[in-house]
Amino acid sequence: MKIDGTPYRSVWVDEQDGWSVRILDQTKLPWKVDILRLTDVAAAGHAIKSMQVRGAPLIGAVAAYGLCLALRADPTTTAMERDAALLGATRPTAVNLAWALNRMLARLRPANPASRVALAYAEAAAIADEDVAMCAAIGQHGVGLIADLVRLGRRVNVLTHCNAGWLATVDWGTALAPIYMAHDQGIDLHVWVDETRPRNQGALLTAFELGSHGVPHTVIADNAGGHLMQHGDVDLVIVGTDRTTRTGDVANKIGTYLKALAAHDNNVPFWVAVPSSTIDWSVADGVKEIPIEERAATEVTTITGRAMDGSIATVRIAPSASPGANPAFDVTPARLVTGLITERGRCAATAEGLRGLFPEHGADAAA
Amino acid sequence: MKIDGTPYRSVWVDEQDGWSVRILDQTKLPWKVDILRLTDVAAAGHAIKSMQVRGAPLIGAVAAYGLCLALRADPTTTAMERDAALLGATRPTAVNLAWALNRMLARLRPANPASRVALAYAEAAAIADEDVAMCAAIGQHGVGLIADLVRLGRRVNVLTHCNAGWLATVDWGTALAPIYMAHDQGIDLHVWVDETRPRNQGALLTAFELGSHGVPHTVIADNAGGHLMQHGDVDLVIVGTDRTTRTGDVANKIGTYLKALAAHDNNVPFWVAVPSSTIDWSVADGVKEIPIEERAATEVTTITGRAMDGSIATVRIAPSASPGANPAFDVTPARLVTGLITERGRCAATAEGLRGLFPEHGADAAA
Repeated sequence: MKIDGTPYRSVWVDEQDGWSVRILDQTKLPWKVDILRLTDVAAAGHAIKSMQVRGAPLIGAVAAYGLCLALRADPTTTAMERDAALLGATRPTAVNLAWALNRMLARLRPANPASRVALAYAEAAAIADEDVAMCAAIGQHGVGLIADLVRLGRRVNVLTHCNAGWLATVDWGTALAPIYMAHDQGIDLHVWVDETRPRNQGALLTAFELGSHGVPHTVIADNAGGHLMQHGDVDLVIVGTDRTTRTGDVANKIGTYLKALAAHDNNVPFWVAVPSSTIDWSVADGVKEIPIEERAATEVTTITGRAMDGSIATVRIAPSASPGANPAFDVTPARLVTGLITERGRCAATAEGLRGLFPEHGADAAA
Repeated sequence: MKIDGTPYRSVWVDEQDGWSVRILDQTKLPWKVDILRLTDVAAAGHAIKSMQVRGAPLIGAVAAYGLCLALRADPTTTAMERDAALLGATRPTAVNLAWALNRMLARLRPANPASRVALAYAEAAAIADEDVAMCAAIGQHGVGLIADLVRLGRRVNVLTHCNAGWLATVDWGTALAPIYMAHDQGIDLHVWVDETRPRNQGALLTAFELGSHGVPHTVIADNAGGHLMQHGDVDLVIVGTDRTTRTGDVANKIGTYLKALAAHDNNVPFWVAVPSSTIDWSVADGVKEIPIEERAATEVTTITGRAMDGSIATVRIAPSASPGANPAFDVTPARLVTGLITERGRCAATAEGLRGLFPEHGADAAA
């Protein structure tokens, strides 16, 4: 999407030399748009490990391009396997990371070392392009939800939680894809951006993305959404997901469940953008079965921002003697979800709904 | 309540001289326990205006003592009326402030100027003592809710939102009074403290209060409560209120409604501590009729805390180009409230429940 009028992806091959890899340093956002040039596998590994890039799809794409850079230095099988393992160890729990590297290796192992560099760039580009196409499809299947609200005869208000935008993918994003498409089609819309404590991905990244692309938006405390819904100020909620069960339960950033409850209580449609790669066909009961990561308490008891002198500073916001707890995700039961937006279309948040769009998983879903 | 083993009230007359007024500077909490000595009406007015003291009951008590200090300087009627008006203008929307000053003036106007100082200190002490007694009564009527949970055979987990503790009143607090009493009775309890964005009164004041008194507690992001309830980690919710309708709808700090929804969805009892002074007998529908204050967006887009070098610093936590919105309160419909704890006892959050405890308002309630 655009930053100040210029279209970007979150990872791309440098046009100047045709081989080095460019990323936006997301640890600097929203304070500074810093475009990094990655020229070797170590830099790519560092970018993933230090969260200069984040978001499962983007991590996968950067790892794929990291392997391209590795092969430029040494295309032998020994080096390739070593460097792939190095990249795979940067964020060991990221499913997309392993998936992208395995896909690359499956393509590259049978190939002659001399042809691997070209093959690798082509495969990495395919991974990136397929992610863009998948997000664009979610956008196309979701934009109608917003377009339908134009009948209200006024600006459409959409609420979102966390960051499921283009910075977490290669382009478009998932939950934000329908929003960008609606905006680009000229629909008058406005986005309520939950700040998304404790890591504030909403206030930092979603607000930056929307503002840079020109989408009207307002940052709110996570506490405010229920009140806004009670007063008719939210027409639609769209969020992303980290993992969706075969029955339509949705694990997403902590606090999503509270917004779903408020949407349900106020008859506000609550939609989830679901790339099919995030559907876990083995899980039926999200609340009981999905383990929730407990992250560092310091994410709650401290916060980082830009000080008045322009420096980036971390401040403590709870007494030093007070412990904190930090569950990172919660599960929204399917009964609170109006529907799912996948790359194949929209469906009800039910086993039947998902099975209808993904019949090849019918056997899992019936298990 | 206690700070490091020493009992405090939030306002008191200095034992050394018997006339100056002591307060804790709440703008310094939790980073520093700074006890201020107020010796004239200007200092008392500044304490209220600059929020060194906050919380409706405490503001009323400090205003009453401020008038005592004014009368020491000049007990004439002209000066008294002028100084009362000065104090009344410090926080013009605080109902308790006007109430306390009017009560003082009603007592003092008929009196001989020479006797006003002694009368004023007696009346201010009565205002403070009555507030303590009211909060203690709420504690006594509420502590049974916690004691009943001892049957679970494990530590009792209570969740609270914002700060309805002794720092907002003269002692005990409202929502925290049952918690302090349960703790003092030796009940093994633990409090989940919502940080309460955007002003973070939970993380700053409630955590400080509980920690200083020795009550086990954990600070959480406002987003976390629903997840904790889904997993059985919350046995009871107790919150305060700024205004309760005659039908039991509860206006309280923004985000309270979301916790009530989650409590309802998980069968967790949701109780509200309601001093009868906060009941608005003229209002029947809280969501429709109670106007919600919209505060400065900078409360959302910036945050103040203690920097690593010990200084107090404000950092920006959203892009400077992104606007923010900041509704300060929300209304929890009575249907989500398990019950109300008043100084006269507990009742259902219904017109009948409140009328049963406050029959003198039966005519209002039937209107």
